[in-house]
Order: sequence, then C-alpha cells, then structure tokens
Amino acid sequence: MQPYELSLAAAADAIRARQLSPVELVDSVLGRIEKVEPHLGAYVTVTAEQARRAASEAEHEAAHGRYRGPLHGIPMGLKDLIDVGGMATTASSRVRAGHRATADSTVAARLSAAGAVLLGKTHTHEFAFGLTTPQTRNAWDHGRVAGGSSGGSAVAVASGTATFALGTDTGGSIRVPAALNGVVGLKPTYGLVPRHGVTSLSWSLDHVGPITRTVEDAALILTALAGHDPRDPASLPVPATDYRPGAGTDLTGLRIGLPRTYYFDNVDPRVETAVRHAIGQLETLGARLVEVDIPMTRYIQATQWGLMVPEAGAYHESSLRTVPELYQEDVRILLEASELMSAGDYVRAQRARTLMRAEWARMLEEVDVIAAPSVPMTAVGADEETVTWPDGTVEGVSDAYVRLSAPANITGVPALTVPVGHDSVGMPIGMQLLGRPLDEPTLLRVGYAYEQTQPARGLATAA
Amino acid sequence: MQPYELSLAAAADAIRARQLSPVELVDSVLGRIEKVEPHLGAYVTVTAEQARRAASEAEHEAAHGRYRGPLHGIPMGLKDLIDVGGMATTASSRVRAGHRATADSTVAARLSAAGAVLLGKTHTHEFAFGLTTPQTRNAWDHGRVAGGSSGGSAVAVASGTATFALGTDTGGSIRVPAALNGVVGLKPTYGLVPRHGVTSLSWSLDHVGPITRTVEDAALILTALAGHDPRDPASLPVPATDYRPGAGTDLTGLRIGLPRTYYFDNVDPRVETAVRHAIGQLETLGARLVEVDIPMTRYIQATQWGLMVPEAGAYHESSLRTVPELYQEDVRILLEASELMSAGDYVRAQRARTLMRAEWARMLEEVDVIAAPSVPMTAVGADEETVTWPDGTVEGVSDAYVRLSAPANITGVPALTVPVGHDSVGMPIGMQLLGRPLDEPTLLRVGYAYEQTQPARGLATAA
Repeated sequence: MQPYELSLAAAADAIRARQLSPVELVDSVLGRIEKVEPHLGAYVTVTAEQARRAASEAEHEAAHGRYRGPLHGIPMGLKDLIDVGGMATTASSRVRAGHRATADSTVAARLSAAGAVLLGKTHTHEFAFGLTTPQTRNAWDHGRVAGGSSGGSAVAVASGTATFALGTDTGGSIRVPAALNGVVGLKPTYGLVPRHGVTSLSWSLDHVGPITRTVEDAALILTALAGHDPRDPASLPVPATDYRPGAGTDLTGLRIGLPRTYYFDNVDPRVETAVRHAIGQLETLGARLVEVDIPMTRYIQATQWGLMVPEAGAYHESSLRTVPELYQEDVRILLEASELMSAGDYVRAQRARTLMRAEWARMLEEVDVIAAPSVPMTAVGADEETVTWPDGTVEGVSDAYVRLSAPANITGVPALTVPVGHDSVGMPIGMQLLGRPLDEPTLLRVGYAYEQTQPARGLATAA
Repeated sequence: MQPYELSLAAAADAIRARQLSPVELVDSVLGRIEKVEPHLGAYVTVTAEQARRAASEAEHEAAHGRYRGPLHGIPMGLKDLIDVGGMATTASSRVRAGHRATADSTVAARLSAAGAVLLGKTHTHEFAFGLTTPQTRNAWDHGRVAGGSSGGSAVAVASGTATFALGTDTGGSIRVPAALNGVVGLKPTYGLVPRHGVTSLSWSLDHVGPITRTVEDAALILTALAGHDPRDPASLPVPATDYRPGAGTDLTGLRIGLPRTYYFDNVDPRVETAVRHAIGQLETLGARLVEVDIPMTRYIQATQWGLMVPEAGAYHESSLRTVPELYQEDVRILLEASELMSAGDYVRAQRARTLMRAEWARMLEEVDVIAAPSVPMTAVGADEETVTWPDGTVEGVSDAYVRLSAPANITGVPALTVPVGHDSVGMPIGMQLLGRPLDEPTLLRVGYAYEQTQPARGLATAA
C-alpha cells in the first residue's frame, strides 16, 4: 500500500509512530498528483514546492518531539473559495483574475496550526453556484460529472491526490460530489465551522466542512475546524470538542428515522436498494427504525432558491454590473435572476425557513438520526442536462442533485454522506445521515458504526 | 393619595399587607377611567365588568392566603395588538372588524397567571405602523400627540387609567410614547419576551415590553414576561430571572457611554440639556463617563425601513389585495411601498444589520450602558407633520421620533426610557439607556438609581 492510499487516521498513526515521515507522505501524494491529475482536473493550483517545504518542517518538528496532533504532516486540498494568505482565491472564475488573499481564512489558519500541509486549491463550480464542476472529471469514470460545487475536493480525495480536503455546502456542495465519488462528506451544523475568509455564495445557507475517505477522518478534521470566531456573524459560541467516535458499533437504543415521504421519491431504484440495505445494517447493529414524515416538502425547493438567489445576487452585484461577460453563462443567468426577485419573495422564503426549522426540530424529537439517500441518482454523463423519472417527470440534473441536500441547508441541521456501494456500472452511491443541530457526535457515531460493517474501500478505480 | 395614583410596587405592597384590596384598587382605576378617558381616547375597549370580577377573585384568593406575587390584583391595559382569548384584537384598524382571538397570547397568559387584572385594550397607531396614535391625546396636553405606536398604553399609565400597560416596539413604539407622556418604557432584548399571539409589524424588529410609572415597576413586569416560548421562533432559551433592582444607588465602577455622534444631533436644546443633566446625576452616583462613537450611523434609517417595510408588506399582503380601502391612508401607502422593494434591497438591509450588530457589540465592550435622549423633541401638536431643525433640515415628525429609537430595534439591544424632567411648556423629556443583549439588570439598576435621586413623580397634569 502506498502512502497516498492511507486514510488520514492511518497516516497519522504511522507518522506519530515514526513509521512514516510527512515528507514521504507528501511526496507520495505529489507523485500521485503528477500521474493522475492531468486526467482529472481536480486542482486549480498545485503548490508542490511549498508543500515539500511544509512537509520537511513537519518532519523536523516531529523529529524534535513536537507532534501537533493527528493532522501533523497530512496533505490536504482546499476548495478554491477558501482564502490562503498570499495565494489567489480564484473561485474557478475569470472574475477573480489577479486576486490575492491577504490573510488565511479561519479554517485554513486552524488546519495549518494543526500541522496540515497544503497541496493546492481545488476546483469549484464557478463561485459554488452549480452542482457539476465542469472543469473536473468524476474519479470513477472520466466521462461523468464530478458533482459540485466541491467537485475538485471530492475527486482529489477519491483518487488519492489529497488525504483530505475541505468543501463548502450551500445546497449540497459537499455531500453531492462526495456521494458521486464514493467518499465521506460532512456538512456541519450551521454556525459550527466559521466561514471568515471563505467566499460567500449565500450566507444564510453556506457551510464549510470536510471531505475524507472515512468517517473517522471527517471527525478528526471537524475537531480542528469547529469553534467560535466572531468574524463570522453566524458563528456559534460552542466549546472545543473532540469529535473522534468511540470504537464501539453497538447502536442499541438509537432511533433512526426512515422517511416515508420525499427522500425516496424519484430516486433511482439501485440507489434506493443500496441505501435501504445500509439502513438494514444499522438495524442489525441495534438501531430501531421509526418511520417519519418529512414536513413542508413542497416548500423546500422554493425556499432554497428563494434564499440563495437574492443573497448570491447581492454578493455579486457590483461585478455583475461591471464585468458580466466574465461569468460562465449558467452562473450569470442565475445571478441576473436575482434582480427579478421582490423583497416579498425573499421575506416569504425566510418565513418558510423559520417554520421548516421548527417542524424539523419537532421531527428530530421523535428520532435521533434520519437516514436517506444523499442524491437521487449516481453521477450522470458530463453532457446530460436532464434526468427523466419513471413517472414521466423531467428534472434538471442540478435540481435533482440539490433536491435531497437542500433541507439540511435550509434548516441548518448537520448531514453526513457515507458510501454504501456502487450501481451496476460501478458508480458510487451515498447514504445521507441527518441529525439534530450540534449533534455531530451521533451522526459520526452512526456513520462510523456502519463503516465498520463494510470491507475497507480502495481509491477510485478510474483514477 | 388615591389608589389609582399608586405605583405598581406600592400597590402590590399594600395588597400584600392587606391594607388595600384588589377590588378597591380596580374600582379606583375604573373610576379614574370614567372621569378622564373621554378626554384621552387611550382605550379601544374597557372591560369594566370582567375587571371587577377578576378583582373580586383576586381579593378572594388573597383573603384565603393565596398571594400570586407582586402583580396580584393589579389592573393593566394591553395594547390592542395583544391577543386575549375571546376578545377582538382590533389593531385599531377597520381591517380587523369582527375579529376574535381564540386564545391568550403568551404575555397575556403570563400576566393573568401572575394575577394581573385586565382593564381593557389600548389604542395603537393602526397595526403599529406609525409614531403618533392619532386616536389618543397626550396625557399632558390634549392638543399634542400621544406618540406611538403604543400611545394608548403610555397615556393610560401616565394618566392613572392603568397601573401598568404593555406596548410593542418595532422602531421605538414603547419608548417614544413613554417619553412623550413622562413614564417609563422598556424595550427588552430581542427574543427575551415571547411574541406568540401578538400581531406582527416586522418580526425581525418587533418586541413586547412594559410601560410603567417607575423603573422598579418595569422590572416587576419583565420578571413575569421574560422566558422561553418555542411558539415564537425568535424566543431565547433564557432561565427565569428576578429583575427587581437592588436597593443601592451606588454606580461606582460603571462605565456610561456618552455618544459623541448621532444621539445629540438635531436634538431640541431643552431635551439635550435635561438629558445631559440626568447623565451628570449618574456621574454623581459614581459612574464614569466614556465618550463613544456610534457606528454606521448613516445606515440606520435605511436599515430600519429596509427591514420593516417588506416584513410588514408580507404580513398584510392578502388584506392589502382584498380590502385596501379599510386601511388609513398613511399605513396603506407604507404597505404599498413594500411592493416596490427588491429582494436585493432587503438583503442589503439584513447585511447592514449584521454588521451593525457586530459593531455595537464591540462598542458595548468599552462601556456598560449608553445614555442618550429617547426622542429628539417633546410631543408636537397633533396637526404638525414636520419639524425644522436649526441647521435648516426639515424632518417628518415620525422620522424624528423613530430616529433615536431604531438602533436598539436593529441591533436587538435592550433600551429603557426614564423621565428626566419637562420642557418650558411642561412636556415630559425622556432619557434612553441602552445596554448589552440580556443585560437588562444593569439598565434597570442604572434607571432605578437615577430615579432615587429625583422627587416622586405625579400623574400627568392634563389628565
């Protein structure tokens, strides 16, 4: 097994035991980037020299007994919406030509302080406003979409070109590409991870979180990321917490909500089968299944777009006036649409969100976790624009990918996607676990327990 | 001294000591209503029969040793936006003809459980959307405005036709009429007092709070009102607190912020002199004055209206479509204006609020309380529409009355107005104390200490 294949936890154990040096690990991942990145397009920029320098500093520190913790010397990719001082934050957009961040974002600073080594910046759907990331190819089939908007991060983690990565999630942008590439993605509770220094799409829906190969790895990253920062007005004053799940897999007493509505409507039967099978595994581990009715489902799409479009429009207002031609057409059209929305539309979306949050809180008194598909179908071909469901519904690919993710953005509840197998052509399937606000420990415990029932996963086959 | 002249605390002490019976007190106040209400127009409805019945129940309870606390048998007025089960909530509007509330609002239920006796519902500027309350006359001069929108409540308390009353405050609607009628008004921290069952003007700016004759009385009411109710989505999960201030008046160590900007701009010199004199009293009590610069002042008005108008428009959307002719013209025009606002306008107002909150939080690290005028001028004549300042600025009366109040609505910080004297024609002047979120105890302590330095205030002279 090559170092680039190791999970974060395994690499950390080896580094701590001095069986693996940060330099070996980073060199191995950089070698992997050299080999497969040309076919993947996951990275906007690879900063190999700086990464090697940081790795040798990490090695020097470790040799002198200064071990910063499980992220010490671990190579990572950061979605290119996340500021790193001195580097451009391109947002994968021509609008950002010549950009240079003056300081680290909170998350970049925290990961750097924890010892992580930056490999480079990964591709996003332009300004995170889309679900495909057209610059990047799916790690399992280069002819299929990476998913988005954190497509570069998910593909890098799935293909071994980053041990972990960060993404952002406004309507599913961590969970969708993680699911489509067979890796783990965590959208934390709204306000748990500060967004200072991260380019905004829609501040009331934006989240930052980890994309990793295992649930345990996601917990290790969350431990480094979580915690109050007053520079993000939505940041919650939560105490420092160690999110690493315990070793046990017994779920006795846990109530898992099985949605009777919404989450299994218009879902590919192979996806449904795999997710229901995984939920059966959770039952085998002792969890009790409780059917739940998802509230206010016919307001979800209108609320998501009603919040997102005006907030995105306000953020881009001046560039859209001065350099509209620099945006890709799909993004420009969405931003222009914001000018047509009335204050009343946005007010109604906010009222719907408030009601939806209250209804979800009530539902989450009945169960501890909700289990559902992450996305209704696996990765589609790069040129497909719609999907047709058996009932005749024709749905835009982006609408379909955002559909099962949006509720967690609107309500702010944490959501974790874990791989639960592959479809008949080998494309990965994700199960989504949703929990109570700030109850990441339960989500991670359930995801971890499920993972222990499965054989270890390898890297993506096409990579 | 007649019972209707007693402060709440004095009446409560007398009831507890069985020197005064709730029936005597309520009869005295009802007699006062009979005498002066025809000239004042403070009440929409007086429910004398029910009040007498409730008073005799309270007396019966007291006689049998069941004493509910300081509100036991105390007669009150509720602004007619506040639901009381079985009664109309008219909002002083023809739009509400035939209305009947099916249940008590949270605040009505809490006051009733605490033993308070409802005298009736008091006038509001129609749907709280104005600063004058044209149906009601100022308690000190019937030719002048009552202030609004809780004009009926303030006039009732000032004139002895209620021992205390509740108001609501979206842009100053508790503080403005309290100041203009020489009584105490408290706009609590956003989320401290639940608004379930209270007609909304603008949910992100709306507050419910007491109007009383003394600061101690305001503290007693707040103790009964505060506390979580999940039926108001903005309600904060705060523990039950006794807000009654301690007896001491020593303010040594307290830092009082004296605004260098905004709060003394375009303020009537007689108001400025009285407020500065009162602030000097606080210094005499040991407080230290610290000059502060109010942040983002040129955004205050646009933010207040940018939040209020669309939220009010959304609330009235359907009535405005079906029965526009039933609204008063001033209110209808404001509601119609909401249709012209874009989502971008509202988004920008929300962003400005977020920044303003953060800046205020920073300012309130430097000082414990800010002291300022409550309104820039005393009560104007009922037919005046504008005020002209020495620098030539012509300002609408409502714009002027809302100007110094709005910051506390936008930022959600608590604000208390206390009477600090009269102008040359005998109209009352109010000093506003603003504090940190949930730091009502400090506001009340300062207001109470100031009050102890002053001779006891009587009822309004014209009443």
